[in-house]
Amino acid sequence: MRSVEWSNGRLRILDQTRLPAEESYLKLSNCPEVARAISEMKVRGAPAIGVVAAYGIALEAQVIEAANRTAFIAELHRAAGLLTSTRPTAANLFRAAQRMLAAAERESDISAIRTALVREAQAIHASEEEATRLISRFGAELIGDGSAVLTHCNAGGLATAGRYGTALGIVKAAHEQGKRIRVFATETRPLLQGARLTAWELMQEAIPVTLITDSMAGYFMSRGEISCVIVGADRIAANGDTANKIGTYTLAVLAKENGIPFYVAAPNTTIDLSLASGAEIPIEQRDRSEVTHIQGAQIAPEGVEVMNPAFDVTPHRYVTAIITDQGVFYQPFELNLKARDEYE
Amino acid sequence: MRSVEWSNGRLRILDQTRLPAEESYLKLSNCPEVARAISEMKVRGAPAIGVVAAYGIALEAQVIEAANRTAFIAELHRAAGLLTSTRPTAANLFRAAQRMLAAAERESDISAIRTALVREAQAIHASEEEATRLISRFGAELIGDGSAVLTHCNAGGLATAGRYGTALGIVKAAHEQGKRIRVFATETRPLLQGARLTAWELMQEAIPVTLITDSMAGYFMSRGEISCVIVGADRIAANGDTANKIGTYTLAVLAKENGIPFYVAAPNTTIDLSLASGAEIPIEQRDRSEVTHIQGAQIAPEGVEVMNPAFDVTPHRYVTAIITDQGVFYQPFELNLKARDEYE
Repeated sequence: MRSVEWSNGRLRILDQTRLPAEESYLKLSNCPEVARAISEMKVRGAPAIGVVAAYGIALEAQVIEAANRTAFIAELHRAAGLLTSTRPTAANLFRAAQRMLAAAERESDISAIRTALVREAQAIHASEEEATRLISRFGAELIGDGSAVLTHCNAGGLATAGRYGTALGIVKAAHEQGKRIRVFATETRPLLQGARLTAWELMQEAIPVTLITDSMAGYFMSRGEISCVIVGADRIAANGDTANKIGTYTLAVLAKENGIPFYVAAPNTTIDLSLASGAEIPIEQRDRSEVTHIQGAQIAPEGVEVMNPAFDVTPHRYVTAIITDQGVFYQPFELNLKARDEYE
Repeated sequence: MRSVEWSNGRLRILDQTRLPAEESYLKLSNCPEVARAISEMKVRGAPAIGVVAAYGIALEAQVIEAANRTAFIAELHRAAGLLTSTRPTAANLFRAAQRMLAAAERESDISAIRTALVREAQAIHASEEEATRLISRFGAELIGDGSAVLTHCNAGGLATAGRYGTALGIVKAAHEQGKRIRVFATETRPLLQGARLTAWELMQEAIPVTLITDSMAGYFMSRGEISCVIVGADRIAANGDTANKIGTYTLAVLAKENGIPFYVAAPNTTIDLSLASGAEIPIEQRDRSEVTHIQGAQIAPEGVEVMNPAFDVTPHRYVTAIITDQGVFYQPFELNLKARDEYE
């Protein structure tokens, strides 16, 4: 299973909206197709959409027709803008687009830009994969034998364009070390990434997983059945405030109340030091139909008012540690995340 | 809309599993039919299932054939046992069955028992309806003009065999007083009572309601958009620990963390002083298919392990007040609930 594949100049993604019922793949040939796949969440997860957006710009570069280098680069900016407008919360999307545009700027002619952008997208892909391996290795040290790990949404291989993933990568690495690990996966309404993707991904690896509704996490925490919570992230501000799938804040509050460690696992590319706190992270509001319908079936009265924020922000005081590809960072995050950046 | 109706010796219930798509009614003629309707949640809500169980015993009394009064009463006990075995958590079910059996004991022959049991079931129904009116009136005093009330599951007329309800009764009474009230209704997975029933019930009364997933409650609380939380209860222990729909504990923790009052609204019949604390309340575990399927559609991988506790217990320290038909009770609940009982 590869959620994102590039070969012979073609981009192929696993359609995550059809899992687990169906493993079907989509070929994406240009930037508008990539943008649509991201906004419809056929590919999702902050690191994965960063990688796919990079390929989207590389694909677009092959088909843009422009009179000169300046006009060509202007068209690349337009393509990048289309991709970054799809989902405002994930830092990785912006980071990848910036890196692609910078790579274009370094080349002196259109043909060289085309070649460089394919190489750069592949480099972004490779470095995101390597990041998940490092996160998994660092994080696994924090997970004891016999742990029950609660996770939310899907921060697995599917979300990161690799095999490991972030939160699930840590679980997989601990499992590979021979530790007995059990996962509680919250179903993650509205789009059910926990039920559809996390449960499926862990079953593929034969790691014991128990599916629960989002509202059950507190029950199991209060009964002492959860050893730790590990989640991914869509954007982490300079002070450690973390935007992640709606419901993450609730799990963090419950973990604190029950004395359970709460870990955020994310690559360096998810950290956005330009934002002082989580209050500055834009929260994507998605379509009402995601709440009123489940897999096409209407579950609520016609015309009911709905709110559908896709993310929430967990204040840093609830976060025990942030597990990155550069190591594990503890409080005070403001100081430690900045030091990490300067060291880099 | 009447969720439970008795007329001319016949029991009719609104099939709550088919709402809001369809308003269809079921006639129930004997105890096994009533037991099945309760366990399949065609009728649900602690007060409502108490009322329906009472009618179930009254119906059964009409058809039991027994050689003498002793054998007849033994058959009534068997019927009561069938009804109380359907759902272990709701106190009202046990309370109603006990009250019905006590009414039978007071009569000297089978014919008199048959008449008395119909009268007693109707009295239970009437007193539950009156209780919701009192709860609504007492509770409305706590709700300020312009409040945004967050509620979970359905503690409305549907849940209480009346028009008002408990938590929703308070909202309706405040609305009738001319206060501007807005409700946030959590959808309440797995069975979606919030999306299907609470949203529908409030829209019928033209009270503004916003539907959210269970995982979004924390987001709106942390943004200061919720004035108070009001929920119903399935059983309240002597110390105020409250069993209610799974997810209630989470809302209580979130409310405390955000400085928001958390109210439990329930009739006297939900309070069980025989249990010292919530640790003694049995928690019903329901079928896995409620988690893996939504309205018949499979949402999780085949064969995934599932847990499905239907209730959780909110420790009394999270409860601001318990709003009953005997008034509003504050901490220390252990003392105040007991004093209430002795006064009665």
